[in-house]
Amino acid sequence: MPGEVFRVNMSNLSVSIEEFPAKWAGLGGRGLTSTIVAEEVPPTCHPLGEHNKLVFAPGLLTGTPAANSGRMSAGAKSPLTGGIKESNVGGTAGQLYARMGIRALIIEGQPTGDGFYRLHITKDNVEISEDTELVGQGNFAVIETLRLRMGKRVGVLSIGSAGEMKMSAANISVCDPEGKIRSFGRGGLGAVMGAKRIKCITLDATDGPGVEIADPEQFKSASRAFSKALLGHPVSGEGLPNFGTNVLVNVINEAGGLPTRNFRYGQCAGHDNFSGETMRERILERGGKPRHGCHPGCIIQCSQVYNDKDGNYLTSGFEYETIWGLGAHSGVEDLDCIALADQLMDDIGVDSIETVVAVGVAMEGGALPFGDGDAAVSLIREIGSGTPLGRILGNGAASVGKAYGVTRVPVVKGQAIPAYDPRAIKGIGITYCTTPMGADHTAGYAVASNIMGIGGLVNPLSKEGQIELSRELQIVTAAVDSTGLCLFVALALSDDPEAFPALVTMLSARYGESLAGEDVAALGKKVLLLEREFNLAAGFTNKDDRLPEFFSEPIPPHNAVWDFSGEEIDEFWNF
Amino acid sequence: MPGEVFRVNMSNLSVSIEEFPAKWAGLGGRGLTSTIVAEEVPPTCHPLGEHNKLVFAPGLLTGTPAANSGRMSAGAKSPLTGGIKESNVGGTAGQLYARMGIRALIIEGQPTGDGFYRLHITKDNVEISEDTELVGQGNFAVIETLRLRMGKRVGVLSIGSAGEMKMSAANISVCDPEGKIRSFGRGGLGAVMGAKRIKCITLDATDGPGVEIADPEQFKSASRAFSKALLGHPVSGEGLPNFGTNVLVNVINEAGGLPTRNFRYGQCAGHDNFSGETMRERILERGGKPRHGCHPGCIIQCSQVYNDKDGNYLTSGFEYETIWGLGAHSGVEDLDCIALADQLMDDIGVDSIETVVAVGVAMEGGALPFGDGDAAVSLIREIGSGTPLGRILGNGAASVGKAYGVTRVPVVKGQAIPAYDPRAIKGIGITYCTTPMGADHTAGYAVASNIMGIGGLVNPLSKEGQIELSRELQIVTAAVDSTGLCLFVALALSDDPEAFPALVTMLSARYGESLAGEDVAALGKKVLLLEREFNLAAGFTNKDDRLPEFFSEPIPPHNAVWDFSGEEIDEFWNF
Repeated sequence: MPGEVFRVNMSNLSVSIEEFPAKWAGLGGRGLTSTIVAEEVPPTCHPLGEHNKLVFAPGLLTGTPAANSGRMSAGAKSPLTGGIKESNVGGTAGQLYARMGIRALIIEGQPTGDGFYRLHITKDNVEISEDTELVGQGNFAVIETLRLRMGKRVGVLSIGSAGEMKMSAANISVCDPEGKIRSFGRGGLGAVMGAKRIKCITLDATDGPGVEIADPEQFKSASRAFSKALLGHPVSGEGLPNFGTNVLVNVINEAGGLPTRNFRYGQCAGHDNFSGETMRERILERGGKPRHGCHPGCIIQCSQVYNDKDGNYLTSGFEYETIWGLGAHSGVEDLDCIALADQLMDDIGVDSIETVVAVGVAMEGGALPFGDGDAAVSLIREIGSGTPLGRILGNGAASVGKAYGVTRVPVVKGQAIPAYDPRAIKGIGITYCTTPMGADHTAGYAVASNIMGIGGLVNPLSKEGQIELSRELQIVTAAVDSTGLCLFVALALSDDPEAFPALVTMLSARYGESLAGEDVAALGKKVLLLEREFNLAAGFTNKDDRLPEFFSEPIPPHNAVWDFSGEEIDEFWNF
Repeated sequence: MPGEVFRVNMSNLSVSIEEFPAKWAGLGGRGLTSTIVAEEVPPTCHPLGEHNKLVFAPGLLTGTPAANSGRMSAGAKSPLTGGIKESNVGGTAGQLYARMGIRALIIEGQPTGDGFYRLHITKDNVEISEDTELVGQGNFAVIETLRLRMGKRVGVLSIGSAGEMKMSAANISVCDPEGKIRSFGRGGLGAVMGAKRIKCITLDATDGPGVEIADPEQFKSASRAFSKALLGHPVSGEGLPNFGTNVLVNVINEAGGLPTRNFRYGQCAGHDNFSGETMRERILERGGKPRHGCHPGCIIQCSQVYNDKDGNYLTSGFEYETIWGLGAHSGVEDLDCIALADQLMDDIGVDSIETVVAVGVAMEGGALPFGDGDAAVSLIREIGSGTPLGRILGNGAASVGKAYGVTRVPVVKGQAIPAYDPRAIKGIGITYCTTPMGADHTAGYAVASNIMGIGGLVNPLSKEGQIELSRELQIVTAAVDSTGLCLFVALALSDDPEAFPALVTMLSARYGESLAGEDVAALGKKVLLLEREFNLAAGFTNKDDRLPEFFSEPIPPHNAVWDFSGEEIDEFWNF
């Protein structure tokens, strides 16, 4: 059963259901969203206009019992970068799409008028209805209301007020099994959903055909080997389950690559105040949960439940990059304050990476003092209320830089650089420069090799081998993002010789094909190249594959500088 | 005498004076500023960073007795467009530079610290001093203070608070003979001056060597013929002197090309409320001046003094594009209100075209209602006080569009489209698309031919001949902008067979060379091509040579659409 493509036209509020076309065979997740965007969206169109499309697609393995396979992708032309965008997420939605046999949901067109709509998706229909009750509500209230209205098994994708206001840092929220929030974070996809005037999408998979597996036995044994590899790896089996991604604060600080005070220093004296170790202690003291899965079937469980002093829920999915961005980058070293900000960003619906980097740039520009947590929180609240300052911030770090005449603005292709300094961890710098996504650590996480020696150590301070490293990782990542597997499986894929064959076998067994390792690499290459083609057709050049000029300044403690020439960076694309 | 180049390094507050190099022979005004920027500014540098340079250069004929020759150019990498920028201006400064033998002033580097400086230029020195008294002052107060301090013959270039805050719409003011304001308007050169932390430049030409003319007799007779041609042309001899540039409201409205309500309609029912004819009556009633020259030697005198109801000075240099932008584009049909806004924009130091277009986009985005003049004026005041909303507006129309999620944003290369609809006046649309300056009517004023038949009528509603028309005009304009002559001389150059030979003779006689008409055209081509090269090296592509997608909508009354394909537009550069 090839599955189906659901197509919703918001200009005339019509729906069509098409059989999944043969030309897209073998594609899922990022591979599918990027292919559809590249085929159907005019590269020079306005991202918030009628010609952009918002595409959702579960991964190739989503809905199967494979460990950590519950993810899905969303794609569009990004309002933040102006290029192609794929973002992926956990939560329950991906598995619900898969269970209904929906390979892709394509949302096109744009209604006239000021109303907002809800799409309700069932196995053979999309109901489009105006939903005035939820307009202006935060994501937590939306999810709560819908779960009350429709039961706890309903899948929800929604935008907060940032998405309604079409801000470029707006994300799309997806509810997790407990009604908490996961996000399609980066690149402003929430603004595209807002521009299509969709407040939320609900999913009811009742009577869906389910996910068929062509060779269940083969799948089962490969799946078992795959799980074993994940649990046996020191990072996915120990570090992440115990400390979450925030295990990285101390690691990256030690390496001198923790960007501090808007990328002036590579170490932060107060790092212990917000490290993963401190966080774990506090979670345990306050009756939170140090481990928590974002979707059924996750065996890494890097999420957590972080409570306040009184034991009340504050946030979950509390990630290293968010904590870094307020903690080290902006000097707000109070973990409770950062957790509150995280909750607010989830509720308002803005990418926490983009937003916390933007807060630091606003501090650089003098809009608030470095280190002032209360001011940072109240600034974030302004995004939700749509004040002029909130709009400046809600459009991301580059927008803040522009408004305040700041030259020290850490962005590539208009998207904020996350928590790893590219001078002290050069491999990730190549990823920031070259990925078609704009600065994005998840597009080719060279930190693993540069700092943790995963897949073999490549000296973080030397230029040698970084282009090749980033290229290989970006190719693998484009493939992994197509499977619906969590990116953290890549740690085991790099280090455990059993893991990659197991993945290939699972894909073969799911679709009744006989795939080889090269097929997976070929998929990654194909996806990466078509994303780049889209960007070139949108008007990008190699000048967009560059870091901002202030990275020529040395960063302590290593006093490393960004010393790749343009020609050297351009070598990335020679494959 | 070749003249000199004054070079000021703001990083170390040093000055050097160099002989004008042979490689720049034959260059002045725009030709010289663009050449220096192209040679010395790294195309991908941050426009507000230390690597950008701000260059001033009087034109080739500036300081001579030639009619309307008092203009000068400023150049830099633009913070608004990200490309090369030249802007030119009247006032007294150009002639003072020329009289001191200064062919170019190049300001490079950037000081550390928060202070602002004044440069005082005399024939053989630049004094750099911190000037705290003037910081935060509006341009009118700066000019008044400096004229009191240094006498009325002092030349002044200054920035207002918008330039101090490095806003992308900030302009540079130049005082005219009466201490009123002319502006290097477009592209944010005031932000570049602010980034170099220069509040103002004063000029004292005492004992300057003056402007030598190699063949005074030849010059005199050519100059006489040239003046005669200007005065004999119906537009420069009658229309502009009587009504100023605002003569165009009725003309362009009649042609159906007056963009109304953010480019929804081509005619504005209330056009009589702010037309040139209405303005002239009001000026005369209130004891203003309908004619006023922006620099000594201007015989067109398109400026004016516009007083309020009580006969007190409100504004001068009150241009059609500004009046259109509030009048038709934003629906503020009260000429007194527009005049007050004009005064405020001069005082704060923002480009009035960029700002009024931005006001209309803010209305589109719901920040204030269409037609609300009081709200528009108070919004403009916010630019000066640097509120968040003021910063959004002060960074131009694209910035407002971004903040408010507006797709209907009339810009090309990030610069606002002025007062002529490109669908109904297609020649000017080609200029908007292709000029390296970003949307700029003055770069190749096809309106003259499309609407007034100057140089031969080219049907404004047909695509035929528009590429060739715009190309020819852009080449001539790049040359005229290099001479220091007011662009309005181009009207006579197009229609009067005596005018162009007279111009060539004046140039020959000034420099003791024997130039031909082709030399002038060759200069224009060279300048245009090197400007484009800069932009390509900065990362521009042909995708930047396009109008926003909403211009595919028909505009009443002709229901014309923008129907040039990308390939057709790209033909422009085939010369």
